Amino acid sequence: MTDTRTETDSLGSIDIPADRYWGPQTERARRLFRIGSERFPPALIRAVGLHKWAAAEANRRLGELPGEVAEPIKQAAEEIAAGKRDADFPLPVWQTGSGTQTNMNANEVISNRANELLGQPLGTRKPVHPNDHVNRGQSSNDNFPAIMHIAAAQVVTERTIPALQTLAAALEARAAEWADIVKIGRTHLMDAVPVTLGQEVGAWARQAALGAERLREAMVRLMPLAQGGTAAGTGLNRHPDFARVFAELVAERTGLPFTASDNPFEGMGAHDALVELSGQMNVVAVSLNKIANDVRLLGSGPRAGLSEFVIPADGLSSSIMPGKTNPTQSEALTMVCAQVIGNHMTVTVAGAQGHLQLNVFKPVIIQAVLQSATLLADASESFAANMIAKLEPNRRRIAENVQKSLMLVTALNPRIGYDKAVAIGKLALKDDITLKEAATRLGHVSPEDFDRWVRPEDMVTPGATLEG
Amino acid sequence: MTDTRTETDSLGSIDIPADRYWGPQTERARRLFRIGSERFPPALIRAVGLHKWAAAEANRRLGELPGEVAEPIKQAAEEIAAGKRDADFPLPVWQTGSGTQTNMNANEVISNRANELLGQPLGTRKPVHPNDHVNRGQSSNDNFPAIMHIAAAQVVTERTIPALQTLAAALEARAAEWADIVKIGRTHLMDAVPVTLGQEVGAWARQAALGAERLREAMVRLMPLAQGGTAAGTGLNRHPDFARVFAELVAERTGLPFTASDNPFEGMGAHDALVELSGQMNVVAVSLNKIANDVRLLGSGPRAGLSEFVIPADGLSSSIMPGKTNPTQSEALTMVCAQVIGNHMTVTVAGAQGHLQLNVFKPVIIQAVLQSATLLADASESFAANMIAKLEPNRRRIAENVQKSLMLVTALNPRIGYDKAVAIGKLALKDDITLKEAATRLGHVSPEDFDRWVRPEDMVTPGATLEG
Amino acid sequence: MTDTRTETDSLGSIDIPADRYWGPQTERARRLFRIGSERFPPALIRAVGLHKWAAAEANRRLGELPGEVAEPIKQAAEEIAAGKRDADFPLPVWQTGSGTQTNMNANEVISNRANELLGQPLGTRKPVHPNDHVNRGQSSNDNFPAIMHIAAAQVVTERTIPALQTLAAALEARAAEWADIVKIGRTHLMDAVPVTLGQEVGAWARQAALGAERLREAMVRLMPLAQGGTAAGTGLNRHPDFARVFAELVAERTGLPFTASDNPFEGMGAHDALVELSGQMNVVAVSLNKIANDVRLLGSGPRAGLSEFVIPADGLSSSIMPGKTNPTQSEALTMVCAQVIGNHMTVTVAGAQGHLQLNVFKPVIIQAVLQSATLLADASESFAANMIAKLEPNRRRIAENVQKSLMLVTALNPRIGYDKAVAIGKLALKDDITLKEAATRLGHVSPEDFDRWVRPEDMVTPGATLEG
Amino acid sequence: MTDTRTETDSLGSIDIPADRYWGPQTERARRLFRIGSERFPPALIRAVGLHKWAAAEANRRLGELPGEVAEPIKQAAEEIAAGKRDADFPLPVWQTGSGTQTNMNANEVISNRANELLGQPLGTRKPVHPNDHVNRGQSSNDNFPAIMHIAAAQVVTERTIPALQTLAAALEARAAEWADIVKIGRTHLMDAVPVTLGQEVGAWARQAALGAERLREAMVRLMPLAQGGTAAGTGLNRHPDFARVFAELVAERTGLPFTASDNPFEGMGAHDALVELSGQMNVVAVSLNKIANDVRLLGSGPRAGLSEFVIPADGLSSSIMPGKTNPTQSEALTMVCAQVIGNHMTVTVAGAQGHLQLNVFKPVIIQAVLQSATLLADASESFAANMIAKLEPNRRRIAENVQKSLMLVTALNPRIGYDKAVAIGKLALKDDITLKEAATRLGHVSPEDFDRWVRPEDMVTPGATLEG
Repeated sequence: MTDTRTETDSLGSIDIPADRYWGPQTERARRLFRIGSERFPPALIRAVGLHKWAAAEANRRLGELPGEVAEPIKQAAEEIAAGKRDADFPLPVWQTGSGTQTNMNANEVISNRANELLGQPLGTRKPVHPNDHVNRGQSSNDNFPAIMHIAAAQVVTERTIPALQTLAAALEARAAEWADIVKIGRTHLMDAVPVTLGQEVGAWARQAALGAERLREAMVRLMPLAQGGTAAGTGLNRHPDFARVFAELVAERTGLPFTASDNPFEGMGAHDALVELSGQMNVVAVSLNKIANDVRLLGSGPRAGLSEFVIPADGLSSSIMPGKTNPTQSEALTMVCAQVIGNHMTVTVAGAQGHLQLNVFKPVIIQAVLQSATLLADASESFAANMIAKLEPNRRRIAENVQKSLMLVTALNPRIGYDKAVAIGKLALKDDITLKEAATRLGHVSPEDFDRWVRPEDMVTPGATLEG
Repeated sequence: MTDTRTETDSLGSIDIPADRYWGPQTERARRLFRIGSERFPPALIRAVGLHKWAAAEANRRLGELPGEVAEPIKQAAEEIAAGKRDADFPLPVWQTGSGTQTNMNANEVISNRANELLGQPLGTRKPVHPNDHVNRGQSSNDNFPAIMHIAAAQVVTERTIPALQTLAAALEARAAEWADIVKIGRTHLMDAVPVTLGQEVGAWARQAALGAERLREAMVRLMPLAQGGTAAGTGLNRHPDFARVFAELVAERTGLPFTASDNPFEGMGAHDALVELSGQMNVVAVSLNKIANDVRLLGSGPRAGLSEFVIPADGLSSSIMPGKTNPTQSEALTMVCAQVIGNHMTVTVAGAQGHLQLNVFKPVIIQAVLQSATLLADASESFAANMIAKLEPNRRRIAENVQKSLMLVTALNPRIGYDKAVAIGKLALKDDITLKEAATRLGHVSPEDFDRWVRPEDMVTPGATLEG
Repeated sequence: MTDTRTETDSLGSIDIPADRYWGPQTERARRLFRIGSERFPPALIRAVGLHKWAAAEANRRLGELPGEVAEPIKQAAEEIAAGKRDADFPLPVWQTGSGTQTNMNANEVISNRANELLGQPLGTRKPVHPNDHVNRGQSSNDNFPAIMHIAAAQVVTERTIPALQTLAAALEARAAEWADIVKIGRTHLMDAVPVTLGQEVGAWARQAALGAERLREAMVRLMPLAQGGTAAGTGLNRHPDFARVFAELVAERTGLPFTASDNPFEGMGAHDALVELSGQMNVVAVSLNKIANDVRLLGSGPRAGLSEFVIPADGLSSSIMPGKTNPTQSEALTMVCAQVIGNHMTVTVAGAQGHLQLNVFKPVIIQAVLQSATLLADASESFAANMIAKLEPNRRRIAENVQKSLMLVTALNPRIGYDKAVAIGKLALKDDITLKEAATRLGHVSPEDFDRWVRPEDMVTPGATLEG
Repeated sequence: MTDTRTETDSLGSIDIPADRYWGPQTERARRLFRIGSERFPPALIRAVGLHKWAAAEANRRLGELPGEVAEPIKQAAEEIAAGKRDADFPLPVWQTGSGTQTNMNANEVISNRANELLGQPLGTRKPVHPNDHVNRGQSSNDNFPAIMHIAAAQVVTERTIPALQTLAAALEARAAEWADIVKIGRTHLMDAVPVTLGQEVGAWARQAALGAERLREAMVRLMPLAQGGTAAGTGLNRHPDFARVFAELVAERTGLPFTASDNPFEGMGAHDALVELSGQMNVVAVSLNKIANDVRLLGSGPRAGLSEFVIPADGLSSSIMPGKTNPTQSEALTMVCAQVIGNHMTVTVAGAQGHLQLNVFKPVIIQAVLQSATLLADASESFAANMIAKLEPNRRRIAENVQKSLMLVTALNPRIGYDKAVAIGKLALKDDITLKEAATRLGHVSPEDFDRWVRPEDMVTPGATLEG
């Protein structure tokens, strides 16, 4: 029902909504790929804009594009980078596996917009041509890999790593605050020897901090850009210095040390660097799943659970059980972890199936990577702010739990040997009496020695229980 | 900046955009879960509407809700089922793992809308109360599992199964059309004995048809609804007949044989039925990946590949290589397969982590299942229409390939034995001569016998090559 | 250092350990595939023996093999089926993806053994020839798929399904025994409304029983055997009735309703039926993971955990914490579940990568499937016998937990409405008082009504708490 | 039927095969865990021996064990490290999730053997006691994580990384050898612009080399050992310097820079470092899958495939198709890749499910990691030696393929623009003529210019086709 204009490219003519900047390749793709509702996220489209800006500027500097063509291209690309043309990128993720349609979408939007800036109506394809100028010295086959690396590196460094550091810092702060709370440890989910709450939370902080470290290291192999390979890796039809200048421009704009890959074949035929990044995000998901699950275990109750934490009341409740407080942030976070683990499998399966000079699973790979990076960032921040910062220890329950633990008997090992300690523990459990009573009854330890030797607060550092 | 109204529930008061039907629980959740951009798909929200309609009607029939409360609830629920209230469901997938916030969102939207229908302003909570009436005899813990089953069963039966049948039919039609084209078979990707193109495509048709069958069988265990379990599986606070009447109403509305589960505990604490459905969609992805990949292998070329198919020119091309036609539909489909395989891992990880009376990975599970079902449907239809229907065999190349195959020598096994046949094949390869020439030169077969015994068209049915 | 004999086949001669029945193809493969230590399990080798017996008998009946050749082949094959030739199958799983080397290994062992029975030394290749006779009318490409189906169906029906039924029965017995123990339910791991221990355990029983059902249904699509397709699916060089007679013989010997596939192309180029079986085992793993985890949650303690179960003392303990009892059977079982889930991913990745007429991931697929089936069987039996049968409820703790639960307030919903119930619950939590005290203090319920309305034993069946 | 002796520990007495060194804990576990046939690989058992040696020596140096107890312990441990006691480790992988039974197995074997060295009969438990001496200052909870790291680091550095370097070197050698062979490139599996065979193979070499680099970096986070945490991470009952001295001894013996973790809680409650290692092996599997698949694509044929490589004849063949050569090494390798990808899922699922102070999926994690590391090592070496070193290019076919490619037209883009180049390509395809003929017929390029501008050998380096 909307007005249309007719555009013609070398493959024919087609009607296009009159108010859209895209061209025939985009329009055809829009009709051919009616699959799902998934669209690339803004971070990807912004990287497309940045990419085309840098490509035009590099070509201008190298004499491959005259200024009067390069400048309107750069201006149009900047609009995309600024998020002003999102509505002109209508294509689904489920398109050609090289991302060609999204690259051509960018070429068409930019050429139309550049020509408009030069006073031409949409659809003229001149003086700025989508392939000859906007795509100058490029191919989707090297453009899209470069865009994938740029977008992933930006989201991970700007969002995911800082969010993990925020979470690590929140955990470290609570660990320091709770360094002196001696509590029962649990191994196999069973009562074990004492730890401090600070030690328990400190392990989570370490996991989060190591997650940030893992992602930083995955950035190393994202920095080489396959840009410059053009169609098959050889660099056909591009200026000999294009790849280097392009990478320098992108590095300058992003503040990230991108370089021109010296083996663009590897970065076009495979996406191992993104499989690796996804694998490191998979480790982060594994870590966060453990942390979120531990929090809900310790917060279970409030009366018939472990009940060592009080889960923050967040104003949400059950639809039937009045006043029930649930660990909702743990649940949101562990669901995110399940998604990230599944995304990693998608990326693995997609990454393994490249053929010769091209892996054609690029859109699904970058979609999954960016979703994982964004969800981990958002969920880590939410968990830090809405759960960790608001958790409170239930000191009464914590004290009760550690005092009644049968595993305090472990402190006696160095004094009386393992076998006698077993006898004490078994008697206390069988007769439901205290360890001290059992130890005395068996004659293995005097009450005075027991009080001197079995002190939970001595059991949380090495060496304190050793004979001497 | 928008106008707001203040609503109060038992957990406090909060400002809500004035023009929205949702209430305080939704608004609080909206602020607490700033995670990702993923929202439930329309199919899920429609199932929410259907669910709340059936619950109100069941309660009305059983005397648990008076008609003057039930009727406006039903009307409001119908609006949701018709897709008119999508904008009032603002919550992300990444929320409480029971789906409670989305259930409360529905309770709030319906009670507000019902009260509006009864002449009350938004936010009054009476005469229709979100918990006491809209959620009557229910809990998120049994509602959301029921909604998950309903939505999944609807999408799979209305979209995915028919799409697979469409694809199977398209493949069967081409198989019939090409039943007489004798061509080279390939095992280990190496030249092997002849098959017909009809047989080759018929195997794909069988895979697609079996996929539909697998999904139909997965429906069996989706039919029991956990509705009726309320908070923990016991059915606390609901009418003894509620579950049965509810299931009958849903069955009537959907045309699917839903029943009340006789063990709602199982359907709330675990989601094995959806893990199973996801597993069957995983098989479908495996099947379609094979089909799409075979098509692009056979269509590789046009000149330096196997080149037995001509890939349809779809008006799309490379951004740098002029006039290049690519198997874009195979690529979109195999990317969908990678997504479905990854989604299955998400569902598996989420399904494995239920705790006691509740699995709290419900939103991520149903999101993944509905995405897989929709993508498989869309991509199968697109592949059938845009690839299978338009493929053309390259008869000249097909004929050349079969004629020159060294594996035609296999037809000689029953005549001269395997060891002599090996000698013929090795000589032909080494000296780059025909099998016939090699057979004659070695003296194992006369030229006349060779012509009688080695006929590709006889090699595609059992028994024809046997001595006799 | 061992004695050798020299054997020669059409591809050359090679030294073979003198006391082994295998021949040159096996010996060459043994040297070429020095990868890993994994060997096919006995179940697979037994199926190889059964297969070769049935093939020889079918060929004999159809006049394709004379009795004097068929009978020694059958006798040698029976020896393999009886487990007497395991040491003659030295090849690793990591070989040709068609299983050709294992098929040829069988052909060579059988022909050598058959010739020995006929008075010939090893290595003569006559009167019984490995390819012309033992492999008569067959190819590895249809043999190995048939062997895969036979072995998988046997292990699943003889071991896995009965083991799941054993576990389901054990769980049902405990559920019946504990039907009257009212206890606290837990949702989101938080205190919720009451359930009975019988209901809780009954949900696990249902999961186990449904697992057996899922595996039974996966058998349906395992019954069609690709045997008869020979090299590429067409049935080249085999008797027209061979596939039917072969399937009948296998069905008779195994008691399983095997048939000849009417589309062997599908069963050779893809292994969707095994991906499906693996997917159903994946659901079983998900179910068992939940059960085993719930058991250890409820058994956590003995003093500072949920402590509603007493984990059986199995005579094992910590190496440092004296007398500690751990849920070791839960741990073995959940590790098995992790393995099965990973195996399913292996099978999925392998199943998705078939090419044209042959999937060449057959050995890894059947290895993973048989490992999953065996581990699920063994671990289910061990868990039933060593954990479920020996679990004891801690009735004192169970009673305490349910009595102090704040969620008993839910029973008041139908009497006083959700909002007032919230107020009671929040007050009781805040002031650490009983619900009854809070209800009375707020004036919402009289003490007498409270005692009549809030009775945990009434809260475990539908309707009992409704007003009336 | 075998002779037994009766041993008694603090948990009771039990009969043990008379000739075995293990004790009651091992014997009980052997009877309780009748699950599967999987046993830990020798690399793990050797690391157990090394561990116990270092623990005894550290305790001796720190005065925690007298020399007359420490020395026989060390001697017994050395025997395990040397592989002489493998038969005394009878327990399956499917045991307690902490590896406690294997640690106690070691404690029992060593104490029995040490006592034997001191002239005592088996089963005396003195003067060397399994817990008080062999396990001195240790717990399974910190021992087994240390053993996991030691074993994994040893296998990866001694086997996997060198094997990947071997493969990379083999690929680089062939790439150098074939640097001048200009051939057709393929993107989307379709004919594309030229590359050299050296470039194509060089991309694989890069992938293999990066794989080695990825594994080296994963070693960084494997170096901190959780040894010293004892039961729950606090270091209870161990000497304050034990962890440091132990790590130094292990570092010295292995040549790897192991250290004492400063947060053993993290290394006991989680195994993120091994999930990370598994993730990097997953990337390697993705890389190798691509390489092996490319090799079989290029080697497909010999007559009706791409046929650019001649697959080495390895003396193996089809059981029915005489003389057929298959890419068996590609198949073994891609099956290994499927296993590694599945193992990674196992490790991920297992790693995500730690609880509080202990992850109890340790045995399945290390089993999967060691299997992946070993299989990748073996398969890489086999592929390098039996496939890459023996591949031969089919120069005639390579030359034909590149000459007839329509995508040579891409070289004209900088001269005549993309749109005219499209017209040339489409005409050549439609009329099945050469590009030159089409270019001339359309009048876009003169025959002389065509010959000057379109030269495959100029198309494999940047810039050569640019106007100028």
